[in-house]
Amino acid sequence: MSLLAFDLGGTKLATAVFNKEGIISFREITPLENRKGAEVGELIVNRISTLSDVTEITGDEIKSIGISVPGIYFSKKGTVWAPNIQGWDNYPLLEEVKKVSGKMPVTVDSDRSCYILGEVWKGNAQKCKDAIFLSVGTGIGAGILINGNVLRGSNDIAGAIGWMALQRPFEKKLSDCGCLEYYTSGEGIARLTQKILGEKKHYSGEFRNKPIEKITSLNVFRAYEKKDEIAEEVVNLCIEFWGMACANLVSLFNPEKIIFGGGVFGPAVSLISKIKQEATKWAQPISIQQVDFEASGLQNDAGVYGAGFLALKELNS
Amino acid sequence: MSLLAFDLGGTKLATAVFNKEGIISFREITPLENRKGAEVGELIVNRISTLSDVTEITGDEIKSIGISVPGIYFSKKGTVWAPNIQGWDNYPLLEEVKKVSGKMPVTVDSDRSCYILGEVWKGNAQKCKDAIFLSVGTGIGAGILINGNVLRGSNDIAGAIGWMALQRPFEKKLSDCGCLEYYTSGEGIARLTQKILGEKKHYSGEFRNKPIEKITSLNVFRAYEKKDEIAEEVVNLCIEFWGMACANLVSLFNPEKIIFGGGVFGPAVSLISKIKQEATKWAQPISIQQVDFEASGLQNDAGVYGAGFLALKELNS
Repeated sequence: MSLLAFDLGGTKLATAVFNKEGIISFREITPLENRKGAEVGELIVNRISTLSDVTEITGDEIKSIGISVPGIYFSKKGTVWAPNIQGWDNYPLLEEVKKVSGKMPVTVDSDRSCYILGEVWKGNAQKCKDAIFLSVGTGIGAGILINGNVLRGSNDIAGAIGWMALQRPFEKKLSDCGCLEYYTSGEGIARLTQKILGEKKHYSGEFRNKPIEKITSLNVFRAYEKKDEIAEEVVNLCIEFWGMACANLVSLFNPEKIIFGGGVFGPAVSLISKIKQEATKWAQPISIQQVDFEASGLQNDAGVYGAGFLALKELNS
Repeated sequence: MSLLAFDLGGTKLATAVFNKEGIISFREITPLENRKGAEVGELIVNRISTLSDVTEITGDEIKSIGISVPGIYFSKKGTVWAPNIQGWDNYPLLEEVKKVSGKMPVTVDSDRSCYILGEVWKGNAQKCKDAIFLSVGTGIGAGILINGNVLRGSNDIAGAIGWMALQRPFEKKLSDCGCLEYYTSGEGIARLTQKILGEKKHYSGEFRNKPIEKITSLNVFRAYEKKDEIAEEVVNLCIEFWGMACANLVSLFNPEKIIFGGGVFGPAVSLISKIKQEATKWAQPISIQQVDFEASGLQNDAGVYGAGFLALKELNS
């Protein structure tokens, strides 16, 4: 028997077939290309049909499907809000998939929930009952595991840590994405670096020959390693904000682990010990001694492993 | 059958006998006077023995005991850390109580957990599965209900919201109690008011005839209502911090309700709509539309009702 797992992103669909021990027997990446709205749903439906046929022939029949979506999954309605997929404001994914899945169970959840579940199954949160995955990329979200279950909240929107308020007073510019995300998402890091560079009169650092608008967060982390003064200013601010945000998670949740992932961790993993140092200043002093800060064990695969674990959990439930 | 509930505070022990519908048939308040360490445990043991005898005679036999403690209850060891009771660093409360409780179940939990349970049973969180009690008094803590269960964390220290980081950079003065508590506990409010008054050269407001060191947070809220400039400065800062803290709870937990209690709410309940206004600027925009901010329905009785509900839940489990 096998489990079919999908990790839908803004630009591609990652697919994997797992056995119940979590070994991958098949995987593929399908670019979304110009697909939007129902076409993205059809792509998933198409992969389910094709792979069901194949695994039936090979005797490795699929028994359960898990899907990670890049946004919010509204479990009561079976619909998805995904800001980076055009037309997925309230997309009826579960209904569409059910058309081809027959009696097979289908389980959908948000990417942040899948990330922490993936780490619990096969990554760095194995054996944890209380752990948090902090995902920092284009957006920022937290997958929060409490006593072995993912925190959903009353309407499935829990874990929206990009909105964490960390610096008063409120400013209008924080309205679109929240304070933590404004300053420390990949985009936020690039934007602040560009702004400081634009204002700087005398500068001969790492960015001197680069068009300002082309600077990315990856460039900033590389320049930080070379002690570029602007990169140091920006990254030190990020460390401070991430430290405060993690301190707040530690004081509120008293978790065993915080796991760092997403595109920014990535290049920022070398900062984790500095983030812990900053968090230690702020957090409940006993809780901070009981928590480990670690990089994701699965990196880009956290979502697809999480989707596989969704499928397995549903089968075992 | 009846339930015996204790709400232990820093200066007194509140006791109540409930029937299983949550009606109180008996209650008393016992001042701790100069009791410390084991003497406080003996007081509880003594009340259990006496009340067990009485209820046996009246035919209203006690079937379960719940105890709310002013600090942290370590459920794995059955011990209590209570900063305001001398000698209760690691007090074996469960063991002591078990000596007299016989076969009766005894359940202990922290006051913040009991507050939200009390509100769920008989206060303003009835029918809620995801709700938070924000308790602001001498200290600040949050009782957090997730899908009907209290959030404990990996070692029972969850909900330590007094430590929430809300204003960078870190300053040494925040080390003892955390950022939110430093600025907005009852003591913090009085301290900041006293500091501003001490620095003020020309002042003829509400505090003009009062010895600075005698100013309490209650005085500050009264002066705020009379538009005293210093009180307005201090209270507006509190509204900002409480708004940010609540926004962070809303973004992380997506709760149905946040309930305000403790000594400060109390006089600050009239500020709840302003706190919601501030939180709305910062929080995840869908979640903030789905949450109600309300005053405690039980006020000073939240703890004893919560202890009663602990006793009932244990009996039903």
